[in-house]
Amino acid sequence: MSNIDHFELLFNPKNVAVVGATANETKVGAMVVTNIRACGYTKEIFCVNPSEKYKTRKIFGLKVYQNLTSIPSQVDLATIVVPPDAVVSSLEDCVDAGIHAAVIITAGFKEVDEDREKIQDDLVRVSKKGNIKFVGPNSMGIYSSANRESPLHAGMGFMTPGPGDISIASQSGSFGTMLCNYLKNIRYFISTGNEASILMEDYIEYFGRDPGTKIISIFVEGLRDARKFHRIAKEIALKKPIVFFKAGVTKGGKRAASSHTASIGGSEEIYSGLFKQNGILRADEMDELIFLTKAAKFLYPYPKGNRVGILSGGGGFGVYLTDSCEKGGLIVPQVTDPDLISRIGKYLPFYWSRNNPIDTVATWDFSVFPKILKIILDYEGFDIILTQCMAGMGDFFANYKPMDPYGIKRKEIMVEMFQKLESKLAKKQISIVTSNPNKTTVLIAPGFSPANPVFDLYDDAQVLVTSNPKGTIDILRKLIEYRKFLENNNAI
Amino acid sequence: MSNIDHFELLFNPKNVAVVGATANETKVGAMVVTNIRACGYTKEIFCVNPSEKYKTRKIFGLKVYQNLTSIPSQVDLATIVVPPDAVVSSLEDCVDAGIHAAVIITAGFKEVDEDREKIQDDLVRVSKKGNIKFVGPNSMGIYSSANRESPLHAGMGFMTPGPGDISIASQSGSFGTMLCNYLKNIRYFISTGNEASILMEDYIEYFGRDPGTKIISIFVEGLRDARKFHRIAKEIALKKPIVFFKAGVTKGGKRAASSHTASIGGSEEIYSGLFKQNGILRADEMDELIFLTKAAKFLYPYPKGNRVGILSGGGGFGVYLTDSCEKGGLIVPQVTDPDLISRIGKYLPFYWSRNNPIDTVATWDFSVFPKILKIILDYEGFDIILTQCMAGMGDFFANYKPMDPYGIKRKEIMVEMFQKLESKLAKKQISIVTSNPNKTTVLIAPGFSPANPVFDLYDDAQVLVTSNPKGTIDILRKLIEYRKFLENNNAI
Repeated sequence: MSNIDHFELLFNPKNVAVVGATANETKVGAMVVTNIRACGYTKEIFCVNPSEKYKTRKIFGLKVYQNLTSIPSQVDLATIVVPPDAVVSSLEDCVDAGIHAAVIITAGFKEVDEDREKIQDDLVRVSKKGNIKFVGPNSMGIYSSANRESPLHAGMGFMTPGPGDISIASQSGSFGTMLCNYLKNIRYFISTGNEASILMEDYIEYFGRDPGTKIISIFVEGLRDARKFHRIAKEIALKKPIVFFKAGVTKGGKRAASSHTASIGGSEEIYSGLFKQNGILRADEMDELIFLTKAAKFLYPYPKGNRVGILSGGGGFGVYLTDSCEKGGLIVPQVTDPDLISRIGKYLPFYWSRNNPIDTVATWDFSVFPKILKIILDYEGFDIILTQCMAGMGDFFANYKPMDPYGIKRKEIMVEMFQKLESKLAKKQISIVTSNPNKTTVLIAPGFSPANPVFDLYDDAQVLVTSNPKGTIDILRKLIEYRKFLENNNAI
Repeated sequence: MSNIDHFELLFNPKNVAVVGATANETKVGAMVVTNIRACGYTKEIFCVNPSEKYKTRKIFGLKVYQNLTSIPSQVDLATIVVPPDAVVSSLEDCVDAGIHAAVIITAGFKEVDEDREKIQDDLVRVSKKGNIKFVGPNSMGIYSSANRESPLHAGMGFMTPGPGDISIASQSGSFGTMLCNYLKNIRYFISTGNEASILMEDYIEYFGRDPGTKIISIFVEGLRDARKFHRIAKEIALKKPIVFFKAGVTKGGKRAASSHTASIGGSEEIYSGLFKQNGILRADEMDELIFLTKAAKFLYPYPKGNRVGILSGGGGFGVYLTDSCEKGGLIVPQVTDPDLISRIGKYLPFYWSRNNPIDTVATWDFSVFPKILKIILDYEGFDIILTQCMAGMGDFFANYKPMDPYGIKRKEIMVEMFQKLESKLAKKQISIVTSNPNKTTVLIAPGFSPANPVFDLYDDAQVLVTSNPKGTIDILRKLIEYRKFLENNNAI
């Protein structure tokens, strides 16, 4: 019985049961069933609900069982969505049915008060006695694409992740949902909840060993076993990047964290030391967690140096980008190479700046962007190229409100033109960037919106588009430091 | 002749001439004409182009004149869009036609090199001799709603500002365009260009005196007359907020600025001192320039204190918001008031946190948000309320890619539901916030996109929606400091 691979059951189950399934769309039990189907899971799903009405009715076309033991097959994974006071007996039912892995979505345990903490202790007792390991309680669920043809999203929340190689573990459902929705290409996602049975550190260790995980992205309010994390972190970080967000770093934040996931905060100094020693890519803002994870994936091999070439469509934006680089420890070197100047100059009006940042002087001939981009990507004096991303302009123009017929007509022409132009330019920009994988290129789209599907083009090609200069520089600096960590440890 | 009010001619001209107008839509001369029409200008527009073909053809339905002197009326304002080498003679033509105000869009002067600087000097000579003042050269143009029934956008660039009370002067066309597009309700917009005739300091002084200007928003690479700025800044700041962005603060940034608008950088210490002494609201990032300007307008009267009440839809987000507040010098006080706890608790599951941040525990009953918002707005223990904005969720769901028919159906239902729900909730949220003008409330929408028209609802009601916690806290801290400046100077 001790040979059971609980993670294999959790991440690659041959079937899944939903205890507390319902056809009432306003309930979490309905959302979990729909999510399992919507993500592309093709294997068997057993709905469990003892209610009289489900003796005759189905749930979203699926047969309903009165209890786990009446399911004819051996169940690999149970998802538990029953009310709080029924969770212990549901877990006991799992044990009776010979199930060894579960995801407990239901909340209302240790995070509430001492009385409810005792019920969580009961869960732990049942799990140890019955050799069943579980995610949660108070978890939003899990996603796994261990089987790419039949990925599983056993959880609540609105997300439709697709198979990929980023593994996420989050003590926050909202952050976890956001990560899945922005990053899209997911290997595993775990909303760890109260971690009564499986700890955050266990997931990280598993991701570290998993060959299908290339990047690890973590949201933590408090680690339970910082020693274990310290033991495993560096070894993993030398093989694959770990992007780590620590919430609850201030006094108020720690208090809030303790009532959210009942976690122990630990001092900022301990975490900061842990991260520095172990080559952890620490994110300081919510946006940074998303973009640093994307960057760790898209920008490999990481920048060798900190010399930035800037190609901007407006002078002020170029000056601001230069400030942002230099404030953040990157260098925007002067360019005096007459050959480079003359090659770029061919595409620009005589009054261009003849230096770095390279300002296209608000030209309306957008075809010069990819042409100049190609020239500066070949130039040896830059390690990193920052340039503007045209995508999203069509949407922006669509929101204009011109007042007269000529203005309205021009708006219509421009929106149509830009929607065509932006995907054409995007493809050209993407093809140039991907043909130069040894130079780090980042595109900045000030009006970036994750809801705009035009940005999918860049994601699919693994070309990084970010939303603001400061965040971009922070990410680049961290990747340069990470590269140094790898070099110093002979891992590169 | 010295009694001419050049600013009156510039901002409230009874007609406008476009020297270099053309019907060729790819040229700036066409864009300027369309922009003048598109913004709602109802007065006379004279197109000037000596080309043979325009003897018979019109430009966007407008009659074309061979030169300025052949225009039958006295022209108030000339917009000059001719090639660089024809600008001096065009300005001379203006003088011959008795015109006393001009906007020079054409670039290619002092910002290029010494030879071109001499041509700019010629412009200054012509202007002094002929008593004509001009914006630019190398300007993107101006917008004025001094006459609200006939606002004027004499410039290039893509924007459709509407009448309002924010006045903007920018040494960057790209920043200026962005400000106009985000802020929408504009009194004056000036792209100052090379400032050969009218200086940035002159515009600021004018905005300071103008009763129609309630907020001043400034982008500067370098001030020419820092003494004048120092003389006027505090007096203005005591009457209306000046939001100021200084680019070119690093070595590289200064170099870039000098080739962009030929400005003299000045040391960071000088600017920093100038801003502190004079109550200037300094923005440090591009986003902050936009949102601090909006906040200066929407959040009046500014927060009296720094005690923040947080209402969040997810625990992790609440912890992160709390960290952001406390890192940024705001306080998230504990809440022990049993009455408040019990009033909020009525709307939440038993396992809610019973403290501040108030976490709605990922409830799907979105109607609890406005209900709890109302309760905490009445509570005396908070100066500021931060909460989530639901707008934009419909767009986000629309980008989901579910795999099976049940998932697809649910997505369709959710998108429709959210698009209805978000505007319903928005209206409710807006009505609650606007009924409590003495408490500072900010809504945070992590997926905020200016291209999404749903956010117009909030703008129209002057309710602030921001995109990220850190930026929001920075803005609030600056407004608290500004309020102290006003109090210390007995201006409030």
